[in-house]
Amino acid sequence: MPTARLHPREVTTVLRVRYAETDQMGVVYYANYLVWFEVGRCEWLRAQGTTYDAIERSGVVLPVIDVHCEYRLPLRYDDEVEIRTRAVLLSPARAEFRYEVVRRRDGATTAAGRTMHAAVDRRGRPTRLPADIRSLFA
Amino acid sequence: MPTARLHPREVTTVLRVRYAETDQMGVVYYANYLVWFEVGRCEWLRAQGTTYDAIERSGVVLPVIDVHCEYRLPLRYDDEVEIRTRAVLLSPARAEFRYEVVRRRDGATTAAGRTMHAAVDRRGRPTRLPADIRSLFA
Amino acid sequence: MPTARLHPREVTTVLRVRYAETDQMGVVYYANYLVWFEVGRCEWLRAQGTTYDAIERSGVVLPVIDVHCEYRLPLRYDDEVEIRTRAVLLSPARAEFRYEVVRRRDGATTAAGRTMHAAVDRRGRPTRLPADIRSLFA
Amino acid sequence: MPTARLHPREVTTVLRVRYAETDQMGVVYYANYLVWFEVGRCEWLRAQGTTYDAIERSGVVLPVIDVHCEYRLPLRYDDEVEIRTRAVLLSPARAEFRYEVVRRRDGATTAAGRTMHAAVDRRGRPTRLPADIRSLFA
Repeated sequence: MPTARLHPREVTTVLRVRYAETDQMGVVYYANYLVWFEVGRCEWLRAQGTTYDAIERSGVVLPVIDVHCEYRLPLRYDDEVEIRTRAVLLSPARAEFRYEVVRRRDGATTAAGRTMHAAVDRRGRPTRLPADIRSLFA
Repeated sequence: MPTARLHPREVTTVLRVRYAETDQMGVVYYANYLVWFEVGRCEWLRAQGTTYDAIERSGVVLPVIDVHCEYRLPLRYDDEVEIRTRAVLLSPARAEFRYEVVRRRDGATTAAGRTMHAAVDRRGRPTRLPADIRSLFA
Repeated sequence: MPTARLHPREVTTVLRVRYAETDQMGVVYYANYLVWFEVGRCEWLRAQGTTYDAIERSGVVLPVIDVHCEYRLPLRYDDEVEIRTRAVLLSPARAEFRYEVVRRRDGATTAAGRTMHAAVDRRGRPTRLPADIRSLFA
Repeated sequence: MPTARLHPREVTTVLRVRYAETDQMGVVYYANYLVWFEVGRCEWLRAQGTTYDAIERSGVVLPVIDVHCEYRLPLRYDDEVEIRTRAVLLSPARAEFRYEVVRRRDGATTAAGRTMHAAVDRRGRPTRLPADIRSLFA
């Protein structure tokens, strides 16, 4: 399937771990990585010249239908991390983003994950991604 | 001002501290109390026979315009707490909720706060609370 | 492998969607399901006669090393949901929890997921689960 | 009291509103401002040549004992905001931080708040701030 090709652009977003993101184990609570993934994919879209907000205003939303994350090393308060994001169009109605969470201090990949998204219209019905959005992934 | 009378009903909501709500200090992160306040005021409205959702569907939203919270004792993971909520109508367009966070194990008040809310319409313009909503506070 | 058997006990935890858990799409933000999974597995442990806190005090922590979640239907503010949790010991050092998120109103399974956990000691080194913890999964 | 003087340094931290931070009203959920305040005060400390982490490692924690926030204008997804933070030492054991949340697009102050902090030792007992920390506020 010719469209299911990982887009060559990798976009890096730099974040610093917030105190709010830690838990009593002294490390980043696992759900927060999904928030960082969201930040990463929004920056990926911005680097392509659009914004997630603009996509929503065009009448299409891209809810996550599937997420996977593998946690390799714990992260701590004040660590600087890079979210490295890539994307692939799986079909005219589905896109996938892939993420690596890299600790800046030593370059270690501390987590890796992916999210799959399905295009739906304002009423929540499955739809195709508009052509101009699809072209961002090409 | 006759309406600025604290409503006699106090509504108690029981919560258990989630691991996600702790931070690396080993206690509940301070912003989470505001989430609990929101749960408390929604339960207060439910006890009056309505829901916050029903109010929003009627075209009025009640954003918080001011919050204050005093933290007296730390709370820990798995602690059971009661959110004790009361309310007062400050004017036809403003309401205040007051909260006490009580640790069930020993009855200690671990935090106390209040939120002030202004009625606005769907476009964000100040409005009066509908009479049926105002009557809930009487 | 005789230990890799799904424990017969399914534990149900009831939650109500908090306003804080919604996003501007009007549905529950996807990372919050992982918080609910955490609540579900803590209740599963409680139903077995222990608590996650007791396990941590015994010197073993159980960080998530892998999570997967599939989102089938959106959930909205004030929806009541059941987190139905089961568990399986994968090895003397690893456990998996499986979750279904069921909307109470109609019994629909709105999401399903799993988390894998590796036992580590206070210094973060891999360890075996103590025998009394392992026996909970048998 | 000569120490209760607002420190001349104002530190600005730039953030972009995350999708996770919005709620179904389409604006930033009110508890998230407290997370931003935390980011702001950590950056203030960093600008003074220390980190909150270093303070904690010295055996002193600075829990919030009181917070106030006034919300003037709603913020939306993807808005860029500045957290402008100042600080004052109230006593040898207490410090206050003050925050303004400014929308970059138009310079509007959308919220303003303050947090009061009490120094406690590792066991949670009130203590004095170490002299080198106190000197940061002078």
